[in-house]
Amino acid sequence: MQRRIGQKIKARIGANENAFGPAPSVIKTVQDHAHKSWMYGDPECHDLKHALAEHLGLAADNICVGEGIDGLLGYALRLFVEPGTGVATSLGAYPTFNFHVAASGGRLAATPYVEDREDLASLLRLTKAEHARVMYLANPDNPMGTVWPAQDIQRLINDLPEHTILMLDEAYTEFAEAGTQAPLDVTRKNVLRFRTFSKAYGLAGARVGYVIGHADVIKAFDKIRNHFGVARLSQGAALAAIRDQAWLADVVGEVKRARQRIADIAKSNGLKALPSATNFVAVDCGRDGVYAKIIVDRLLEQGIFVRMPGVAPLNRCIRISCGTPQDLTALEAVLPKVL
Amino acid sequence: MQRRIGQKIKARIGANENAFGPAPSVIKTVQDHAHKSWMYGDPECHDLKHALAEHLGLAADNICVGEGIDGLLGYALRLFVEPGTGVATSLGAYPTFNFHVAASGGRLAATPYVEDREDLASLLRLTKAEHARVMYLANPDNPMGTVWPAQDIQRLINDLPEHTILMLDEAYTEFAEAGTQAPLDVTRKNVLRFRTFSKAYGLAGARVGYVIGHADVIKAFDKIRNHFGVARLSQGAALAAIRDQAWLADVVGEVKRARQRIADIAKSNGLKALPSATNFVAVDCGRDGVYAKIIVDRLLEQGIFVRMPGVAPLNRCIRISCGTPQDLTALEAVLPKVL
Repeated sequence: MQRRIGQKIKARIGANENAFGPAPSVIKTVQDHAHKSWMYGDPECHDLKHALAEHLGLAADNICVGEGIDGLLGYALRLFVEPGTGVATSLGAYPTFNFHVAASGGRLAATPYVEDREDLASLLRLTKAEHARVMYLANPDNPMGTVWPAQDIQRLINDLPEHTILMLDEAYTEFAEAGTQAPLDVTRKNVLRFRTFSKAYGLAGARVGYVIGHADVIKAFDKIRNHFGVARLSQGAALAAIRDQAWLADVVGEVKRARQRIADIAKSNGLKALPSATNFVAVDCGRDGVYAKIIVDRLLEQGIFVRMPGVAPLNRCIRISCGTPQDLTALEAVLPKVL
Repeated sequence: MQRRIGQKIKARIGANENAFGPAPSVIKTVQDHAHKSWMYGDPECHDLKHALAEHLGLAADNICVGEGIDGLLGYALRLFVEPGTGVATSLGAYPTFNFHVAASGGRLAATPYVEDREDLASLLRLTKAEHARVMYLANPDNPMGTVWPAQDIQRLINDLPEHTILMLDEAYTEFAEAGTQAPLDVTRKNVLRFRTFSKAYGLAGARVGYVIGHADVIKAFDKIRNHFGVARLSQGAALAAIRDQAWLADVVGEVKRARQRIADIAKSNGLKALPSATNFVAVDCGRDGVYAKIIVDRLLEQGIFVRMPGVAPLNRCIRISCGTPQDLTALEAVLPKVL
């Protein structure tokens, strides 16, 4: 984008990266091990997987580490979707999931958001009507930042047809309030939980995600994934990150403050921030997608990078990531002029 | 493997990693940029791609950077192979290629090596007989280390059926003598060249490879690859590596000396080293695969990690990577006892 606009981005608050960065302990680990990049990373991600298992109270064979959630979604769809297989999602949900469905030849059906949340009841009805093999749901949601309480997610899981795999994308779960995570239950073969080091742990550039599920299903991922898929320094960085929960707590606090500040900036500009359980805030600009797009484009011209949802009516919003105080000050200065 | 044998590996000379490591300039770059891992890497790998283009005398749109050659082979097979599509390779050639063919449902046919080289004439005959859409060839070869001169490769390219894509794996090309690389000709739509930072550049752990080809074909890779596939620090490391050609020349010299030393060690143990154009040496143990396997296993028990080809008659050999002088001293000490 910098190349396109011919100037530096002043506030990088469009891709829901974590501007508070990885922990100093993580940075030091990477620096200390930089000379070891001549070696392939552990193809089993043994140490990281075991650290995650301990952290989550699971066994290591309930976890597969992969090249970010994006990479793992691709593997999952190659495992479960053939040309013509039904897949259900929400209209406006994570587009990369849809690309992977297309790559596997799946037949994608989508149901609209209701009140800016994925509509669990409709999603389940659609899944049944389409005999969908896969259902996608993000909780908290991207791009709207909304979240369902744990009991609603659990009810959806309980009501899933047995042949349907729920792919539950929890990329932003560390930012959400307690009571929004359904309990981890790895006895079910038809639920997969996707998590990442890209968001709360501040390692988007490292490409490390993981999927949690029944050991038999996890074993299937191990059959098809790239053998040396996860970079060596990335494995080390993620391992250091999981061990620095104090930093994580600090970051979650910073993000919370940034959410409030974005809401305040929105309000003082006559816009309405949606409640968010993530590290970004969807701000309702009060008109349509054309209007929101102009705001996004004009902000970019001023060096402020934000994004927006791709489909109506979600695209009446712009999506602002929880940047640093400086990032938000830059936004605050420019937004009134742009509007 | 260390976990399996319950002890430290003394000489890691089994995976053709580059024990001479990445350049100090590369290590410094990684250390200096470690704090930036909160940002996704450039999804277009713009700077790296342009540096490669300049280095190779090509345009940037003739290059796609991906997650190592392994990742790129997977993309290529997804592009060109459907269930039942014919694919031709050599019996005992790179197994990861075969796994990717299986993943895409291809119908794999293989022709034997002749005199420890992939047999170009047979490979072409097989390709025609099978109406193969894809032909795989590694030059220099893995696992045998042998190489064909440029003119033989060029003749094969000239004789290719138009509907057949040659996937030419040149992972080890920087170690080979001049005159073994067919000229880069990106006007042909049916030749793809795969190269990597994992071997001569000493960055196996970083997962960066690239494919060179006609701009239309390269564009197809861009449609299906993971958007943020290449880690941010890995892109920076590869860029620094391409800029440090002096280090590359030093490493190639070290590897050449190590090849000679492995040949000497083999000879003084009554074994025969095959000539190698790579950073490993196939050593003919003079009997069958069972015998070679015992040697590999016994070496591992002594902390020396080497590998061997998977099929007869190649598996009469063990494959030893060009380690440091210390690595080879450890091998030298243990090999007579093992034999």
